[in-house]
Amino acid sequence: MNKVGIIMGSTSDLPVMEEAMRVLDVLGVGYESTVISAHRTPDIMADYATSAISRGLSVIIAGAGGAAHLPGMVAAYTALPVIGVPVKSRNSIDGWDSILSILQMPAGVPVATVALDGARNAGILAAQILATSDTQLLERIQSFKEGLKLKVANTKSTVENHKPS
Amino acid sequence: MNKVGIIMGSTSDLPVMEEAMRVLDVLGVGYESTVISAHRTPDIMADYATSAISRGLSVIIAGAGGAAHLPGMVAAYTALPVIGVPVKSRNSIDGWDSILSILQMPAGVPVATVALDGARNAGILAAQILATSDTQLLERIQSFKEGLKLKVANTKSTVENHKPS
Amino acid sequence: MNKVGIIMGSTSDLPVMEEAMRVLDVLGVGYESTVISAHRTPDIMADYATSAISRGLSVIIAGAGGAAHLPGMVAAYTALPVIGVPVKSRNSIDGWDSILSILQMPAGVPVATVALDGARNAGILAAQILATSDTQLLERIQSFKEGLKLKVANTKSTVENHKPS
Amino acid sequence: MNKVGIIMGSTSDLPVMEEAMRVLDVLGVGYESTVISAHRTPDIMADYATSAISRGLSVIIAGAGGAAHLPGMVAAYTALPVIGVPVKSRNSIDGWDSILSILQMPAGVPVATVALDGARNAGILAAQILATSDTQLLERIQSFKEGLKLKVANTKSTVENHKPS
Amino acid sequence: MNKVGIIMGSTSDLPVMEEAMRVLDVLGVGYESTVISAHRTPDIMADYATSAISRGLSVIIAGAGGAAHLPGMVAAYTALPVIGVPVKSRNSIDGWDSILSILQMPAGVPVATVALDGARNAGILAAQILATSDTQLLERIQSFKEGLKLKVANTKSTVENHKPS
Amino acid sequence: MNKVGIIMGSTSDLPVMEEAMRVLDVLGVGYESTVISAHRTPDIMADYATSAISRGLSVIIAGAGGAAHLPGMVAAYTALPVIGVPVKSRNSIDGWDSILSILQMPAGVPVATVALDGARNAGILAAQILATSDTQLLERIQSFKEGLKLKVANTKSTVENHKPS
Amino acid sequence: MNKVGIIMGSTSDLPVMEEAMRVLDVLGVGYESTVISAHRTPDIMADYATSAISRGLSVIIAGAGGAAHLPGMVAAYTALPVIGVPVKSRNSIDGWDSILSILQMPAGVPVATVALDGARNAGILAAQILATSDTQLLERIQSFKEGLKLKVANTKSTVENHKPS
Amino acid sequence: MNKVGIIMGSTSDLPVMEEAMRVLDVLGVGYESTVISAHRTPDIMADYATSAISRGLSVIIAGAGGAAHLPGMVAAYTALPVIGVPVKSRNSIDGWDSILSILQMPAGVPVATVALDGARNAGILAAQILATSDTQLLERIQSFKEGLKLKVANTKSTVENHKPS
Repeated sequence: MNKVGIIMGSTSDLPVMEEAMRVLDVLGVGYESTVISAHRTPDIMADYATSAISRGLSVIIAGAGGAAHLPGMVAAYTALPVIGVPVKSRNSIDGWDSILSILQMPAGVPVATVALDGARNAGILAAQILATSDTQLLERIQSFKEGLKLKVANTKSTVENHKPS
Repeated sequence: MNKVGIIMGSTSDLPVMEEAMRVLDVLGVGYESTVISAHRTPDIMADYATSAISRGLSVIIAGAGGAAHLPGMVAAYTALPVIGVPVKSRNSIDGWDSILSILQMPAGVPVATVALDGARNAGILAAQILATSDTQLLERIQSFKEGLKLKVANTKSTVENHKPS
Repeated sequence: MNKVGIIMGSTSDLPVMEEAMRVLDVLGVGYESTVISAHRTPDIMADYATSAISRGLSVIIAGAGGAAHLPGMVAAYTALPVIGVPVKSRNSIDGWDSILSILQMPAGVPVATVALDGARNAGILAAQILATSDTQLLERIQSFKEGLKLKVANTKSTVENHKPS
Repeated sequence: MNKVGIIMGSTSDLPVMEEAMRVLDVLGVGYESTVISAHRTPDIMADYATSAISRGLSVIIAGAGGAAHLPGMVAAYTALPVIGVPVKSRNSIDGWDSILSILQMPAGVPVATVALDGARNAGILAAQILATSDTQLLERIQSFKEGLKLKVANTKSTVENHKPS
Repeated sequence: MNKVGIIMGSTSDLPVMEEAMRVLDVLGVGYESTVISAHRTPDIMADYATSAISRGLSVIIAGAGGAAHLPGMVAAYTALPVIGVPVKSRNSIDGWDSILSILQMPAGVPVATVALDGARNAGILAAQILATSDTQLLERIQSFKEGLKLKVANTKSTVENHKPS
Repeated sequence: MNKVGIIMGSTSDLPVMEEAMRVLDVLGVGYESTVISAHRTPDIMADYATSAISRGLSVIIAGAGGAAHLPGMVAAYTALPVIGVPVKSRNSIDGWDSILSILQMPAGVPVATVALDGARNAGILAAQILATSDTQLLERIQSFKEGLKLKVANTKSTVENHKPS
Repeated sequence: MNKVGIIMGSTSDLPVMEEAMRVLDVLGVGYESTVISAHRTPDIMADYATSAISRGLSVIIAGAGGAAHLPGMVAAYTALPVIGVPVKSRNSIDGWDSILSILQMPAGVPVATVALDGARNAGILAAQILATSDTQLLERIQSFKEGLKLKVANTKSTVENHKPS
Repeated sequence: MNKVGIIMGSTSDLPVMEEAMRVLDVLGVGYESTVISAHRTPDIMADYATSAISRGLSVIIAGAGGAAHLPGMVAAYTALPVIGVPVKSRNSIDGWDSILSILQMPAGVPVATVALDGARNAGILAAQILATSDTQLLERIQSFKEGLKLKVANTKSTVENHKPS
């Protein structure tokens, strides 16, 4: 069963948001994804969020740009943890609007915000949340973290042997 | 009949938002006001916005602080013009979050944003909108603007006669 | 009769500002447009704004970049609602100067500010203002909003079926 | 058993961070808390994070101000979900340094960032994470969210009956 | 004859702007001062600026806060050098709006901008401009600069002898 | 005799700074130009500024990027009016560093700051300063301003006749 | 012999800058201190910096606010390492001007910048620099760092035993 | 023996960081370099920093982008002076996150921060630090500074003879 719902405000967010899909594939976590616009399809957003628990979702990842209301409004409608991805979209002021619109939620309705365009980390965070009750997934995440170390180890010789011309 | 609906995310926004009420009183425009939180009472917000036209409202003024989603979400649910007032509330980063969350709406769903804590201007703007089909109100607004000139004229002697010590 | 006046500080603002024209065409709202510079042609600006009501205008959309004084100065000269479009022009600091110069108007003289380069929303907002006394236009705006929903519905399969490689 | 570990960079962060404790008490979630400085006690930080899983923790909440490295470094050492609270401490530039130091983590090592001084939301988020495998806790969170609605309902009469003097 | 015209958008700017008066008194430069609001009294502003040369003014100092259009609009109407003072007024976002509204003038219409609340420097700059054709004034300015050196010399012992407790 | 000295921190500033030369040529004002680095050639800077009056200069235009100390330090050494041009050079953070380093001078030592990359306005401002004692130059500046109006008049038909496709 | 020279732009910087003195006292490093203004006493600044090596100084700590040119200009005149302390003085825009004026030095002339009002760290850094050739001082710094750990250990019980009311 | 350790968070930082290597080569200072990620290889970072003194290093240069914790964490583990280079990497918000994460260190643990992408200055600063006990190196740095003057002298004719077309 898909435990993670990935939503984004526009198809133009897909190149950023697919990083969440990619890392969830790597970690063996099922997900579903769709486009929901807080401002263009508010009723669909409300339905999606209200029914999320009964449909079996455990975590929602929501990405949006500009005045990014999608993550916060989904969090308003559900008790599930919601991860927000600020997207530096074409209609964004260097990403500041997306970040502040998602991060600065009022007391009572949290959104777990990741870095600008940080969909990969959103995926990892979703897996970490699920892993709080899934020790096999926790082990896969620990292996994944070991892999990050190896990647550094494998590339550092480029720097160690570098002679500036 | 009240033509203007004034809503705010929290009772703590009242000291700012009452400036809208005050100037609408001066201009002879009826209004109603209430507290609606986009994040704490999303269903009430949706109902309010969806039924606004049928209840006889012509303009909505919405004020909120922090990740201020109220103006934009109300605009998502209604075809009425929505005026957004960024409030520099306690949980705001110098007001930047409120401003950007309200101003940077995506194409298709405008919010008429006024200055930080600019509820007085929100009230005047609401009156100007109604005055596009109400010549008597237009005249009262023009008188109001004349009054602004007089106030400058009446106070400028303080500066003209000032001798720095 | 043209109800909306669209003005901009420079011909270089046209690629941004024509979005307002385009959406007003879609919504069936007449408009006129011209170039007026607050700083280069202040007298023409004053004449334009002072005579706007008698020439039959109901709403003015003004776009400008950098130290963008055009919207606020037009608002100083007329009781009509003025919509300001901050333009991220070549001589702008990432748009912050345009936004703050237009948004932060003093109490008494509002400008209805939309997003950076948000001329499309300025057009929609102008239509919404006119629709407060034109139920047929209101219906066209409501259809337009339905169209936004359909566009999301039509494109979401791209995301739903996406498999990251 | 305490599932949530709350750490902060300095005792001066306590007035902010105790909001996390308070809401976890309300939601019936056990926690432990201590002071760990990334820069003054890096070894203790490494030990705390490395042993967190074996000590039975499921979520870590870390709050810090200025160049706030504590949340990100703890996330470097553990596979548990880490929630970061940017604190607007005395040595912070309006909170921007705290926010960016916590939010902008590189791909591979997420921190779930909440609003500036948003410790209350950090506590709720921790509970939401634990509730992904604890339906009773989920119900308590849902009741808590209902309580937020009631609070709005109970206070809105202040605004509805307000007459600006 | 008064060579310098000092104007400000509001009497509330006087505590900042009187520093210009004070230093012009010290340097023996005549000035006149009044309140002119770009947004509330645009016609008076246009008259003031258009007639400035014929009334004998040589330099204009204009101070304003928020969306500060006064300096730039005066510069639009006159060929005299205009010095702009961004004022951190109550309705300003930490002064950023005042600074950018005054500084970022388009090519063709300069405003000589000084620091936030920097009216004292505006006065000195006005004197420096007049001194380009007044050698006695130039000498007074040079003496004034010598005085600045002396002030440092007279106070430095406080620091040189300081023993932190 | 050349009345205006144009200096810049690096030859890489020339594409920006030559706009000052160009407009001074148009206005018939003589100038000299050179490269002086506050940080690389501080002694040459001190000599240049200290001897500026005796060499016949009346105004200095100084452009620099990044931590732009050239305008302020030149102003420290001379009683002449100094115009500062913040340059958005390669080593600048979107120009903010250049702007703040030039604008925020302490009381006593003004720099007349123009817009980011606003060298053209620096040239016009220099001419305006000289024109306070040169009525023929003042007339040329007034003609120049008339030319700005004509340019708007000549291009506005592009916008007036525009039909968005 | 005093190895560290501490200078500041104004006596008003003393409450910030004395933290450098205090920590150098703790670490047993001799220093001298005085007031030097880059803009008011540029010649004294040039003399101070040019003669610093011959007077036996090894490190210079320079603190200033606003358009803070003192650290960078001192670095222009000497080959000694210069530590810059951005001071959030009265004439500063939340410290951003001080930070950027000191930090963003051009290639060739570094300033070792510490945090806003971070004079204590400037003192420690000066000691660390001297300790590169003084093993006894290095040991004192290491003891000092151990002391930081102890301070955390001694205060953490406040947090560990805290019960939010 | 190599006295300077150059580390960076990722091989992608090499194009920026090699400027430090290049200038150290020019100044005749030995260095070693490698990749260490605070977040991906925290244990290697701790080992590197803890053993730095015993391995003979005297100064560490650390460059990183985004939430740049490497310089500050290395400073936490060693008493050596640490120079931080904020890198405007792909995952950085115009460099603001890198700058603030490195600069705003808490009292007790300094990082000597240089300009954004300022690795060349980091190299010079490292040499200046070593030169506090190496008069020959000090002379080479003084020659280097003379060379900066010559470069200005050699290029200024481009500007002096420039005729804008």
